Amino acid sequence: MARWEPNARERLEEAALELFAEQGYDSTSVAQIADRAGLAKSTFFRHFADKREVLSAGQEILADLFAEGTAATPPSATPAECISAALQSAAAVFTPQRHHIAALRRSVVAANSELQERELLKRARLVAVLTDALSERGADETVAHLAAEIGMLAFGMAFARWSALESCAPFGPIADAALGELLASATTLGNRATSPRHRGD
Amino acid sequence: MARWEPNARERLEEAALELFAEQGYDSTSVAQIADRAGLAKSTFFRHFADKREVLSAGQEILADLFAEGTAATPPSATPAECISAALQSAAAVFTPQRHHIAALRRSVVAANSELQERELLKRARLVAVLTDALSERGADETVAHLAAEIGMLAFGMAFARWSALESCAPFGPIADAALGELLASATTLGNRATSPRHRGD
Repeated sequence: MARWEPNARERLEEAALELFAEQGYDSTSVAQIADRAGLAKSTFFRHFADKREVLSAGQEILADLFAEGTAATPPSATPAECISAALQSAAAVFTPQRHHIAALRRSVVAANSELQERELLKRARLVAVLTDALSERGADETVAHLAAEIGMLAFGMAFARWSALESCAPFGPIADAALGELLASATTLGNRATSPRHRGD
Repeated sequence: MARWEPNARERLEEAALELFAEQGYDSTSVAQIADRAGLAKSTFFRHFADKREVLSAGQEILADLFAEGTAATPPSATPAECISAALQSAAAVFTPQRHHIAALRRSVVAANSELQERELLKRARLVAVLTDALSERGADETVAHLAAEIGMLAFGMAFARWSALESCAPFGPIADAALGELLASATTLGNRATSPRHRGD
């Protein structure tokens, strides 16, 4: 019979990411992860199929939160409001507890090209979720895809900023600020650059 | 001594894509490709490292054309004009000869998840090339990344439309139209949808 291990999943995740960061993803074994977490190897396998899943497990949750956030907006919501709602819905997973893990995760992924490829897959999957959610509301195909790409850009910017903070701050306002910058930038792509030297001339 | 084989590279590429489309990428061997092209296996290996390279060889050329197109614009060009120049520069590779190959390529990639992952890598690489080209011209980081993503969206839309045409048409105007639609859509993301039923009310 499996014993009940309080927060086993979180302890395993944190142990795995610490080891990945310390000694590399490839050289870390499941046995070492379980050891560091003070849990049995069999406990690891009750929570994750393999060490790769430690890094990808959050993807489904994020996809669901994106879809739920979009679906909860009123029918009159603009594409920008839908994307904003999706990001605010995703903010639920960016708890103080995840902040330490998120910073570790970023450095682990940055150091491993295989993991970067998996991040691209995850990104494409989330763009598809957002595009579908907007299309189902009747958005034009081009608008839906564009809004979804901008949403994922905002998400990426927000995650990088949030996880780089020394201490944990709410994710929602950071995501909203990133989305606001992108939407404002989107209207200026046809504008000539103003050279700072000539400002005030 | 290697004999000179006229258009060997193009013949190998076409033979490879036809076989990938007919019998699947995984079940096609280099020997079969050389056979179909009426060339020796050693000729294949003078042009490509392996069968995977048949599909990825165009990536470098495209990256160079994007960078050259952006670099050739005057310093006063807007981000939108730079992206447009990059796409027009890339149009050089979309010759009538490539049209048949492009349609085959699309169906081969659509049928194979490993190849779709490689397309995501290629896409990320080209977004990075465009982002860097815009940043070097002094564009703000957010603007550069956004413009690059919109550029790749336009490229993807244009390639899908161009390769789906029954006969070959110039790529440049198709790319320009796709970019124009995206830039116009970008300014409407904050707008409420107009229900077609109420138009003219």
